Formats: sequence, structure tokens, C-alpha cells
Amino acid sequence: MSRQRILVLGADAAGMSAAHQALRTARSAGRDVEVIALEKTQDTSYSACGIPYWIAGDVDDSDELVARDPERHRAMGVDLITGATATGLDIDRGEVTYSKGGGDTRVGYDSLIIATGASAVVPAWARLGTGDLVPGVVPVKTLTDGELWIQHLTSLRAGPRRRVIVAGGGYIGVEMAEAARRRGYDVTLLTRSTVMASLDPDMGARIAGALEAAGIHVVTGCSVAGLTQSGGTVTGVLDAAGNHWPCDLLVLALGVVPATEFAASAGLPTGRAGGLLAEPDGSLTSSIWAAGDCCEARHRTTGDWVFVPLGTHANKQGRVVGTNVITPKARQFGGVLGTAVTRFVHGGTHLEIARTGLNVREASAAGLDAQVLVTEGRTASGYMPESSPAAVKVLADPRTRELLGAQIVGGPASGKRIDTVAAVLWSRGSVDDLAEMDLAYAPPFATVWEIVQLAARRLADAL
Amino acid sequence: MSRQRILVLGADAAGMSAAHQALRTARSAGRDVEVIALEKTQDTSYSACGIPYWIAGDVDDSDELVARDPERHRAMGVDLITGATATGLDIDRGEVTYSKGGGDTRVGYDSLIIATGASAVVPAWARLGTGDLVPGVVPVKTLTDGELWIQHLTSLRAGPRRRVIVAGGGYIGVEMAEAARRRGYDVTLLTRSTVMASLDPDMGARIAGALEAAGIHVVTGCSVAGLTQSGGTVTGVLDAAGNHWPCDLLVLALGVVPATEFAASAGLPTGRAGGLLAEPDGSLTSSIWAAGDCCEARHRTTGDWVFVPLGTHANKQGRVVGTNVITPKARQFGGVLGTAVTRFVHGGTHLEIARTGLNVREASAAGLDAQVLVTEGRTASGYMPESSPAAVKVLADPRTRELLGAQIVGGPASGKRIDTVAAVLWSRGSVDDLAEMDLAYAPPFATVWEIVQLAARRLADAL
Repeated sequence: MSRQRILVLGADAAGMSAAHQALRTARSAGRDVEVIALEKTQDTSYSACGIPYWIAGDVDDSDELVARDPERHRAMGVDLITGATATGLDIDRGEVTYSKGGGDTRVGYDSLIIATGASAVVPAWARLGTGDLVPGVVPVKTLTDGELWIQHLTSLRAGPRRRVIVAGGGYIGVEMAEAARRRGYDVTLLTRSTVMASLDPDMGARIAGALEAAGIHVVTGCSVAGLTQSGGTVTGVLDAAGNHWPCDLLVLALGVVPATEFAASAGLPTGRAGGLLAEPDGSLTSSIWAAGDCCEARHRTTGDWVFVPLGTHANKQGRVVGTNVITPKARQFGGVLGTAVTRFVHGGTHLEIARTGLNVREASAAGLDAQVLVTEGRTASGYMPESSPAAVKVLADPRTRELLGAQIVGGPASGKRIDTVAAVLWSRGSVDDLAEMDLAYAPPFATVWEIVQLAARRLADAL
Repeated sequence: MSRQRILVLGADAAGMSAAHQALRTARSAGRDVEVIALEKTQDTSYSACGIPYWIAGDVDDSDELVARDPERHRAMGVDLITGATATGLDIDRGEVTYSKGGGDTRVGYDSLIIATGASAVVPAWARLGTGDLVPGVVPVKTLTDGELWIQHLTSLRAGPRRRVIVAGGGYIGVEMAEAARRRGYDVTLLTRSTVMASLDPDMGARIAGALEAAGIHVVTGCSVAGLTQSGGTVTGVLDAAGNHWPCDLLVLALGVVPATEFAASAGLPTGRAGGLLAEPDGSLTSSIWAAGDCCEARHRTTGDWVFVPLGTHANKQGRVVGTNVITPKARQFGGVLGTAVTRFVHGGTHLEIARTGLNVREASAAGLDAQVLVTEGRTASGYMPESSPAAVKVLADPRTRELLGAQIVGGPASGKRIDTVAAVLWSRGSVDDLAEMDLAYAPPFATVWEIVQLAARRLADAL
């Protein structure tokens, strides 16, 4: 039997997790495999989530964001080809065509792993006729984007007070609002719906209030629809209502879309969000696999396909695929809950924001008439200096008492408590389970009824 | 039917949770009940866990430690009698005798709730012939103990450098070592076994190392056996090996024992640790109930009786009993996992210590041959300023893959992650569940493989 050739498309979290896991699994099984990876950029395995903190000044150098560079991957046994863009897929022949440096090359595979990730949403109006972005308009997705932001923010800093507009109120939007504010800019955040719309509007309003208090101008219900430019650079944003918002720099934080044109045009199945629809074992066909941000995933509670592009899932899915490509059906990806956390820190403001499971809109879309309750509590005993307020919203199904989701908006040490709720959701536990379980208490760490537990208890009493 | 009279013995967490829950439940049911509570001290519903922080100076006044004072309880409908010590129980007649101000009084009950708590362990050698403690020797259990500590530590402060010995290396021992050190004292901690012996010795050694680095002299394997005194005050401690450890003040942090002499002498069932053995609904007999630190509880994993005196359980058990005393069998107490957290902070040291479930010794005692693994990780992405090291030890049953327990010793924001593990233990989940679940990630909050999850994944791979 000839050596199995595994071809990986994309050398970030999912692709490289899969590649190394395949090598490890083959080694354990005493098998020899060849792993080739194609990466269209020059960068591998970097933390996209770290880019806003690098831009803000928390991280000195982009090298720190790179978990493993190309040389390291090669040293570990991956035949990595950078600057190589896959352009064609012939499923019948088991062959990928890629272009690099102008020339086209064909490479055959026994197993293909698609891990092409996601791309920042860039509206047509943000581009010049050449296809390049209007100068001063930059998304926040790649290390190149990060470099450009640092150049922009530092070069303008010496001049008069400048304005940054952040288009988009999600995680990257809030993090970039912080970064620009900390760099001394006037910041306006425009968001189509509410701030952090993966939380319910009432929780989003709490976040918006904190951002406003820290000097960010927040405009909700505002869809960006175009821009103005002068002298070859952006001078403002136009919204759908016709308002003009002047600015010197524009952050495109409008989300990401799965980078699946290539795979979809070859006839592989994609979903409503455009992501590949892999089986729980990561397979699309008997020889094609997918992992990471180019995929949709099953929501663990509803079973519905959802698009939740996150490094945590990419790493886990990569591991599943890397194992199964050697030992079929050995592992399964357990699904997603939509757990996420971020924070906004500026001056005296330290706000943590977290969510897991379904929000009210998502529960309703899944046909669940969730009962909800917001509990105001504290992160530590009220008499301790570290005690800070936190609001916890909990959702449960009043019929089955199943816990459905939670959202936290609060001070330092509030956000990661979402993991306790996520663990209950993972086991499809009830609001009573969360209310009754044995959680850690000491005065600097919690109130005697831990806040997420108190929230669950109150909702349990109300059901 | 005459009004149901509920008599509660003890007016701290368990007793008052039960009292108010009974009043609430009766009100909801449209029933009128009488709740009488006897409390031997003058204090109600105070945070014993907060006392070391008050002594350390984090809390200004003991009033802040009192959640509800006697007047508040009375205003809320509890007929509270302070300074009243129960001295006799006639189960057949349904009658308690109590002494207050020299006189004895009998009071009948329809339902009796025993919530007498626990008392600090005080060896006979620590007392004078009168029964009073040797001056300079004080436990850390009551608000009176706290007042005395503040008097001691502040009155000696003006003098030459003084020595405090802490006898006992558990939670209170470590917290008092911090308090005395922060007050400027030379501190020696003597512990019979290891530091924080509810964690395994290897994890205890990490804690001991951090305490030593912060200037605490730690002596393990040292059993205190007596003391020396001069001029009517303690001058040193004698250990079982005959060594003399000079000191000016001695902290008795030797643990607590259930305050159940009264109940046991009336023939109520007690266990190996001396705690009352209540059913999951809190009942001892059809009319007698128990809750809080005077009880043992079922370990959720092993089903064994364990003595884990903590405010968290007291509150939950009080709530169960307060409901069931009105509506029998409406609620159950779900058991304990032994989840706990504390910290040691002094100068540049900030160490968090947490545990849940079974340690190696406990697993072995339960007949489980646990497989263990210690993982060294970080609390945030390595490139973030808040990233600090943490060690996570995880235990699992290699046969069933059931997660059995975890221990954390690490820097800021490490300790409360134990709750994620506790949630998995509560549902009797596997090490794979913890390794695969959807936990929150962002660079300031976690590594992309959250540390407790990474620890579980590595152990899962090793099983």
C-alpha cells in the first residue's frame, strides 16, 4: 500500500491542528503518511482574536500572535507551501490545482482537508475600482490588517484630534472601539441593530451604556451604506438613512463569511451561511473533510446548523478530522453552544461581556418559548474590595426546565463564569442543576450564592 | 388545625435560610406558621469566611460581615431569641429546654430544625484550668474571635517584630497566615500533614513554595501538642517531636467539629465525623430536621457521608429544609463535591487555590484507582499582560472515563475555573465531556484550549 497523502487547504488553527493530529495519529498507529498543506498567505497559526489587543498596544509584536510559524510546521513534518492558492478541485480524480508565483500546479490527494477559514465582510462601496480598499478603510482579520492599523493609528496620532468610525457592534467592533479609544482617538461605533447583538437587546443596552460612559459614541440601528472620500482617503461614512458621519479612519467590523467559494463550486454541500456542512466526524465525502471557520456546525441544543467561527471550535474540529482521516469514526465533534466572552477596558471602565447557549431570539426561532430572568449580583462578597456588580440573564424552557442559555455583563472576574453555565448546557442540564450544584465560594471570589447560581435559582423559582 | 410551630436551633446561614424559606413557603401555600429561633450568641447570619479578610484589613468593620442582624430577622417574621442555649431535647414530647440569663425555659415544637453549626477545634492544652483559652491563643470562628485578633495584631504592632504561629494548614490557616503577614508579623505555619491537605501533596508543595516565597515559614509534618506560657500569655508551641516554636500569638486553625452533642445525646443519628445524618430532604425523623455545618452530607460521586462545613451547603440545605418543613418532600439536597477556593496574596504573590471532587486519597478510599495528570498552562493567551501560570491536576476513572476531581494552583483568575469542573462532576460527566465542551475564549480570559479543558484533554488522551 502506498503512503496515504493528506492534502490540507489552509494553515491556520483548523488546518494545522488537523495536520499535526493526523501525523500523531499515524505515528501511534505505526503508519507513514504524507501531509501537504497549501496556505495562500505567508502566515500560519496566528491568533486573529489577539489582533485588536496588538493594535491597542497590549501586545508588542505580531510575532507574539503566531503560535507556530511556517518553519516550525515544516520542522514538525508538514510539507507546507505558502503563497499557494487553491484554484480547482477535481473530486473524481482526487486532485487540487493551485497557483503559486503565476504558475499552476496539480497535486493529487488520498484525503483532502478543507480548512480555508473565513474572510472579513467587505462591502463593494469600501473598494476602489481597482478592487483595493479605499485608503483609511481596513478590516481586522489578518496580520496585514493589524500592521496597517498600527501604521494608521500611530501616524495620525501626532496630528489634531482624529475620528475613527467602527462599523459593526460585535466582538471585533467593541474591541476595536477600545483599541482606538486607548490610542487617543474620538470613536463612534455604528451598529445595524444593537451593540453585541449575540446578546439580547436589554443586555446590549447595558454594554452600550458602559461604552458611552467611557467616551465612545454609540449609534444603534444604523446601517452603513457607503462612504465619502477626498484626496484618495476616506472622509466619512454614509448610513442607510442618508446621514453622513465624518471620520479619518473606518474600521470594517461587519463580521466574516466562510471562505468556501472554491469548495462550493466543486459541488460540496454548504448551508444558509455559506459554510460547509460536515458530518460530526468532519467528513463531507469519503475522502474530503472540513474543519474550522469555513464550516457551519450543529448547535448542541437545537441541532440546527449555525455559523460560529471561533478558534476554539477550529482547534477541536481540526483534532477530530486529523484523527479520523487516519482512523475513521474515531472521534466526533460535539457541536457548539455559541459560548463567547470579551471585554471593554478604558480608563475607569472594565466591562466583561459573555454569553452561551440560546438568546431570546434564537430560542424563539427554535420554537422554544423561553422564560428569562435578569439577576443583579456581585462578583465577590459585598464587603470585599474586589466586589463588582454583574448582571446575569438566564433562559430556560418552562416546560422541561432545561437551561437554554445565559448572558453576563459585569465587572472584573464576571465574564468567565459563563463557562459554568456552558458546562450545564453541554450536558443538557436543567436550571435546577445549576441552582443546586456545588460551586466554589470564598469572599474574594464569589457571593455565598454564586451569581450564576443565584440567577438560576431565581429563574427556577419563577418557572 | 392550630398554627404549626417551627423551632429553629441556631441563627446563622442554615438556620435562618430555613426559617425564612419556611415563612415564604407557608405564605405561598396560604398557611400561617410560627417560627421561633434560639441563638446562643448575640450574632446572626454572619460570614465566618470573611473573618480572615476583616483581620487582614480588607474589611473595615464586622458589621459588614453580617448579612442580617437580629432586628432584621425579627422584622422579617422570625421570633428570634438570642443568648439562648438549648440544653435538653425531649423527642417524645416535642419539647426543647433552653437556658437564657440563668433561667430554664421549655418550648414545644411541631417541627424542629437543628442548625447548630460547628465549633473550632480547641485542644485541651490550649485552655487554662478555668476553661478559658490561654491569652494569645485564639481560633478564627466567631466575630468575637475576630475582634480579639484585631486587638492582638494592632496592639502588638507598635512593639518589636513579633511572631505569629498558625497551627493548621487548611483554608483558615493559609488565610490567617496571609492576614498576619500583611499585618507585618513574622509568621510560621505548622501543619500536621501538608499545606492544604484537601489537595494532593504535590499540589500542596506548590502552595507551600509560594507561601515560603512570600516570607511565611512553612513546616509540614508537624503536629502541635502543647504550648508554653509566661506572664499569663502564650510564649511558644510544642510539637509532637518535642520541638519548641516560640511565638507571641497562636492561631488555632485546626478545623471545626459539628456542634451536635445536644442532638446526639437525645439519640439522633450522627456519623463518623460527629455530624447529623439527615436524609436528602433534610429530615432526621418525621418532625426533626437538620441543616448546615452540624451535618454530614452525601458525596455526590461516592455516595459516602462526608463532613464539608461550608456556607454554600448551609444555605442550600436550609432552603431545602425550610421548604420541606411546610411541603414535605418538595426538595432534595443534591449532595456535595467538596468544591472550594481560596487565595494567598502578599506583596508580589497572588496564588489561587481550588479543588473539587475527589483527591487521590479520597478516590482510593472509595475504591477507585484514579488516573491523574498535572497540566501546566496559563490563565490568558501568553502574549497578554494578564497571562499567569496555573497548574491543573485532573483525576478520572480509567475504566469508565468518569471525571473524578480537579485541583488548581495558579495566579490571578485561575481559581474559579474549578466551577467548570464542578459542573461536569455534578452531572457525572466524563473527562471527554470536559475536553470537548464549548468554553469561552478571548485572549485576556483564556488560552484557546482553556486550561481546565487542556488538562482534561491530555488526561483523556492518556487513559
